[in-house]
Amino acid sequence: LNNTVEQFTESIFSTMTKMAMENKAINLSQGFPDFDGPSWVSDLAVKALKEAKNQYAPSMGVLSLREAIAHNYARFYNYQVNPLSEVVVTNGATEAIFCACLALLNPGDEVVVLEPFYDSYLASIKLSGAKAIPVTLKAPDFHFDIEELKAAISDKTKLLIVNNPHNPTGKVFTAEEIKIIGDLAKKHDFYLLSDEVYEFLTFDVAHKPTATYEDLKERTITISSTGKTFGLTGWKIGWAIGPAALIKAIHNVHQFSTFCVAHPLQVAMAEALMKMDEYLVDFRADYKKKKELLVTGLKELGFNVLSPKGTYFAMALLPEGENDIDYCKKLIVEKKVATIPTSAFYIKSDEGSRMIRFCFAKKDETLLGALENLKH
Amino acid sequence: LNNTVEQFTESIFSTMTKMAMENKAINLSQGFPDFDGPSWVSDLAVKALKEAKNQYAPSMGVLSLREAIAHNYARFYNYQVNPLSEVVVTNGATEAIFCACLALLNPGDEVVVLEPFYDSYLASIKLSGAKAIPVTLKAPDFHFDIEELKAAISDKTKLLIVNNPHNPTGKVFTAEEIKIIGDLAKKHDFYLLSDEVYEFLTFDVAHKPTATYEDLKERTITISSTGKTFGLTGWKIGWAIGPAALIKAIHNVHQFSTFCVAHPLQVAMAEALMKMDEYLVDFRADYKKKKELLVTGLKELGFNVLSPKGTYFAMALLPEGENDIDYCKKLIVEKKVATIPTSAFYIKSDEGSRMIRFCFAKKDETLLGALENLKH
Ligand SMILES: CSCCC(=O)C(=O)O
Ligand SMILES: CSCCC(=O)C(=O)O
Repeated sequence: LNNTVEQFTESIFSTMTKMAMENKAINLSQGFPDFDGPSWVSDLAVKALKEAKNQYAPSMGVLSLREAIAHNYARFYNYQVNPLSEVVVTNGATEAIFCACLALLNPGDEVVVLEPFYDSYLASIKLSGAKAIPVTLKAPDFHFDIEELKAAISDKTKLLIVNNPHNPTGKVFTAEEIKIIGDLAKKHDFYLLSDEVYEFLTFDVAHKPTATYEDLKERTITISSTGKTFGLTGWKIGWAIGPAALIKAIHNVHQFSTFCVAHPLQVAMAEALMKMDEYLVDFRADYKKKKELLVTGLKELGFNVLSPKGTYFAMALLPEGENDIDYCKKLIVEKKVATIPTSAFYIKSDEGSRMIRFCFAKKDETLLGALENLKH
Repeated sequence: LNNTVEQFTESIFSTMTKMAMENKAINLSQGFPDFDGPSWVSDLAVKALKEAKNQYAPSMGVLSLREAIAHNYARFYNYQVNPLSEVVVTNGATEAIFCACLALLNPGDEVVVLEPFYDSYLASIKLSGAKAIPVTLKAPDFHFDIEELKAAISDKTKLLIVNNPHNPTGKVFTAEEIKIIGDLAKKHDFYLLSDEVYEFLTFDVAHKPTATYEDLKERTITISSTGKTFGLTGWKIGWAIGPAALIKAIHNVHQFSTFCVAHPLQVAMAEALMKMDEYLVDFRADYKKKKELLVTGLKELGFNVLSPKGTYFAMALLPEGENDIDYCKKLIVEKKVATIPTSAFYIKSDEGSRMIRFCFAKKDETLLGALENLKH
């Protein structure tokens, strides 16, 4: 068997969801809503099924979907992308990240990753034969140390991965931070992969795609998806956007990793993306309320919550002497509440063992139930 | 950019479908039906959407789908697989092939491939850092030379890929041929990857999975999908089946290549697989008629057709002096019929340049229209 692959273990998100089910605990671990996505979007999928959009889609993605994606980048961010050559539709953001790593990296290349980070980054980097160089974001505000970042960069640096808004911390990077990263990318000539799947989940602060910063477009791959925005994580529709030469290389991998993405769901999403404005207003308002419900509730219970600026996650710093894994187990077994131990997001620092992550993409009654459970 | 990936070109199937559209030609190139899949299966997807099966599926696949897959191998082939540990659901057979290569192969390993072969095999092998060792199946019956096969095997051989029923040739391997392959696998201790996506498309001959031959189960990964069987190629639901340790490794890759497969479509397919018997009778009868319609028609027009025993493809040997690519172009432009030049399926021999492939997964009127076009 492949040596790298043999070392992979089950994703922490699968493990914790299974453990939640086994313990009949309220599941605030894996990031997905426990309520359905909008019925008007499902209805569009029903329509697509009935209109027989059931054969292979074009490998780059259904054209109307690529056009809708480009249209939204233009109107939301004043960012122009060519739907014919600068967009590729993938089976979720996960496949976009994976294909981007395989397309851009050669064995021996180095990739700077800001930890804590989503687990697929490391696997994708390793499967490319490249090496991850972690730089730790420091709690409680999750800033990076500029000197540490500079020290992580070498002649072998080919790529830096940034996730903004940031899972699991809920951080939204400041313009200054992105500029520092961008200046280093320009100076040392490396690419940026910007995972922006929580782009519509920011609280009192606007999202600005990395690619829209000065002179960064040409070296940035933007990744996003519809899973979080529409609460349809199981539809697996994501994309990568960037300069045509990079998108061509990513498509070269995608063509042979999966060839294309579920056709009827793409057709539905193409229409949904063009009609999402009204939905988005409620979506943001609902999530803001959910965030406040959970954060306030946890604080009242004495948790040291680090209020998120984005995503549907909130981190809590554990009391001195506690460790994330034991603490999560205790919460599941004794309080019937499942969370995520954050050490799984770190490879260098042990800061993760001091924190746990709560997901608030849940019905109000679920959040209230979890708070109630935690009280006793 | 990655050196291997940069060399990949657009899949011949995408190229020819685009060319067909540009030339308003009848498209008998890329393998997909020009009629819709069964409406009772689409209706199951509608039901799944309405029942809110819209969040992440388990990364291994929806349990009811894994159970249905196992159930079918048991009843159709008397082949027992454990749905919990020996089945992983993937985004089409393409992802299963890709993940299997990345999971099983280390750089430097060798993979024996019987050419002509489906283009994703080579890309998947190359992305694993392994080397493809081609053995040519010889027209018109597409047999392999045993000595040639033996000569292709070395200490570095880790895997042999067999596609049965075979695209593009329509060959169904004989029991003797599979036994020869299996004996070599046992003797030299390599794995078999058996791509059986056309398992229900055989004509007057039964399909027998490679894994069901004596002592082959433990070293065989069986790959199949619902795309061809249900005429829903755009749903992208495939799987890999095999010994738990191999499936675990394949899942390790799948977990980070895409994480999971479109949830509502999996739920629908789980139910469809349990209820397919009646459908299958008509399906086989319809395709047999289509095959005869096309093969007879082409023969009447003077084509030297190699009658297929399986798949929904038929090959034709070109007249002396003709070359597949020029011939295909001529057919598209002058006759308004698109086919596939088969040289794209070969890396060693130039036999492919003597043949073209027709797809008969088309409405009778489409097939009749193509024959009519070819007449003039
Ligand atoms: C694909 S499971 C992970 C879901 C998620 O984004 C998270 O929980 O961080
Ligand atoms: C994924 S496109 C290829 C379809 C097919 O199996 C073929 O035409 O050979």
